[in-house]
Amino acid sequence: MIKHYSGDKMIVVSGSQSQNLAFKVSKLLNTKLARVEFKRFPDNEIYVRIVDEIKEYQEAVIINTQKNQNDAIIETILLCDALRDEGVEKIKLVVPYLAYARQDKKFNPGEAISIRALAKIYSNIVDELITINPHETHIEKFFTIPFKYGDAVPKLAEYVKDKVRDPIVLAPDKGALEFAKTASEILNAEYDYLEKTRLSPTEIQIAPKNLDVKERDVVIVDDIISTGGTMATAIKLLKEQGAKKIIASCVHPLLIGDALNKLYCSGVEEVVGTDTYLSEVSKVSVAEIIAKLLSL
Amino acid sequence: MIKHYSGDKMIVVSGSQSQNLAFKVSKLLNTKLARVEFKRFPDNEIYVRIVDEIKEYQEAVIINTQKNQNDAIIETILLCDALRDEGVEKIKLVVPYLAYARQDKKFNPGEAISIRALAKIYSNIVDELITINPHETHIEKFFTIPFKYGDAVPKLAEYVKDKVRDPIVLAPDKGALEFAKTASEILNAEYDYLEKTRLSPTEIQIAPKNLDVKERDVVIVDDIISTGGTMATAIKLLKEQGAKKIIASCVHPLLIGDALNKLYCSGVEEVVGTDTYLSEVSKVSVAEIIAKLLSL
Repeated sequence: MIKHYSGDKMIVVSGSQSQNLAFKVSKLLNTKLARVEFKRFPDNEIYVRIVDEIKEYQEAVIINTQKNQNDAIIETILLCDALRDEGVEKIKLVVPYLAYARQDKKFNPGEAISIRALAKIYSNIVDELITINPHETHIEKFFTIPFKYGDAVPKLAEYVKDKVRDPIVLAPDKGALEFAKTASEILNAEYDYLEKTRLSPTEIQIAPKNLDVKERDVVIVDDIISTGGTMATAIKLLKEQGAKKIIASCVHPLLIGDALNKLYCSGVEEVVGTDTYLSEVSKVSVAEIIAKLLSL
Repeated sequence: MIKHYSGDKMIVVSGSQSQNLAFKVSKLLNTKLARVEFKRFPDNEIYVRIVDEIKEYQEAVIINTQKNQNDAIIETILLCDALRDEGVEKIKLVVPYLAYARQDKKFNPGEAISIRALAKIYSNIVDELITINPHETHIEKFFTIPFKYGDAVPKLAEYVKDKVRDPIVLAPDKGALEFAKTASEILNAEYDYLEKTRLSPTEIQIAPKNLDVKERDVVIVDDIISTGGTMATAIKLLKEQGAKKIIASCVHPLLIGDALNKLYCSGVEEVVGTDTYLSEVSKVSVAEIIAKLLSL
């Protein structure tokens, strides 16, 4: 349930990378959307200005995703300064795609735990952080402020519902099985994960652990598609195993470089992601999920 | 006086944008330079790792300028995390060119005071900040940690000393007069500032307030050359007033876009800056100044 704000309590402030999403959220919550000016100086420094008079608002929600991650983080730091100066007491920061969350532990000695470093910064400047499908939820421990997150997988499942018939839902690996399970409940379908078997030094086999895809529609669900390499290989092999229509879905469509082309050429029918991260396939909006989290 | 460190107390850690400068400073201080790995993930996230075992060092000096300012700031945040995790107790951060220092007050309502926002971040993650010629020194008040700065103008004056004969030292405006005064003492020369007079709606005159440049060598000194527009106009007019050789010097050679070409085509003999900011004319090093500030 989205609770409508009275409109005189909270204001929605968008960063430069989530202007559309922030507008949608402000509509759902019935709150004011602040007019904010973003620009760059000739030396590329970021400039922000809250154009509206906002002295009457004690609470602000900044919505800004982190595709161009370093710029987004600095912009957020500047927005917080401007908002505090205007007298805003409580700032909630919504980062639909939280950058650096995949460096959540030391993989080698001497490494930074990047998300810990940034959690310290966020905890220093805002009062709450909200994100969508963080890669690992244990990162919550790095924050000294409330850390909330939503799950966009049900929205993805609803989107593909009318596009497939009696599908099998697949996770690209065992770690992503939870996503397949969530989607399968909405699609009223069986679910499984893809298992990789090395047949010879040069040959690998990727197939569902338990199910047979022959003559079946398939929906693959993951949190992130980055370079799309493993996903493309899996799609090709599933087609060889007789799969009919394959839809690849993910929450955060990073789709680095030629990932999308790679996927299409592998035989996928459609690729779909959400608007947590701007891409050509960001067709599903997380606005409602964010609005609900802000209504809690 | 540069005090040599014993070598087992402090370690110098360079960021990716000041690797040469950090090496020079470590040599001057006789301290170890840490082996640090920097790279980017395919999605452009920054990765840092302290490769050397550094458990024996309680104090670290990070040296990293901020030309690509947002990347440099995030890299610094990550380096601090990695160093703290290795047990470093005290971190001094040397930022030869401190980005965002020019947004040091509200020029319009609703603006962020960018350097205040970042001073809060630095104060949260390091124990001391050292910079060279900050644009305004009052920014010290935004820091809750010691804030030190050095002056590179004497080094610039020493560099030009043998290149000019009985020169006039000029500041490009009254606000920069202090730089001209400092340089004039080393060059044993007269100094003045350039005054702009509007002759008609379309015509401006730029000339030294009190001195005559006819048949004289001229050294112009400023803290920053950004787009080089006013500087180029001044050089052209000084040449028209009979100036012989003109050298344009600055601490931070930002030289945005075509600034350097603009200056050369205006009739300047040489443009010189320091290595606080990497450019084609970063010929003067601030390594000694930094080493001295670290020896205090």
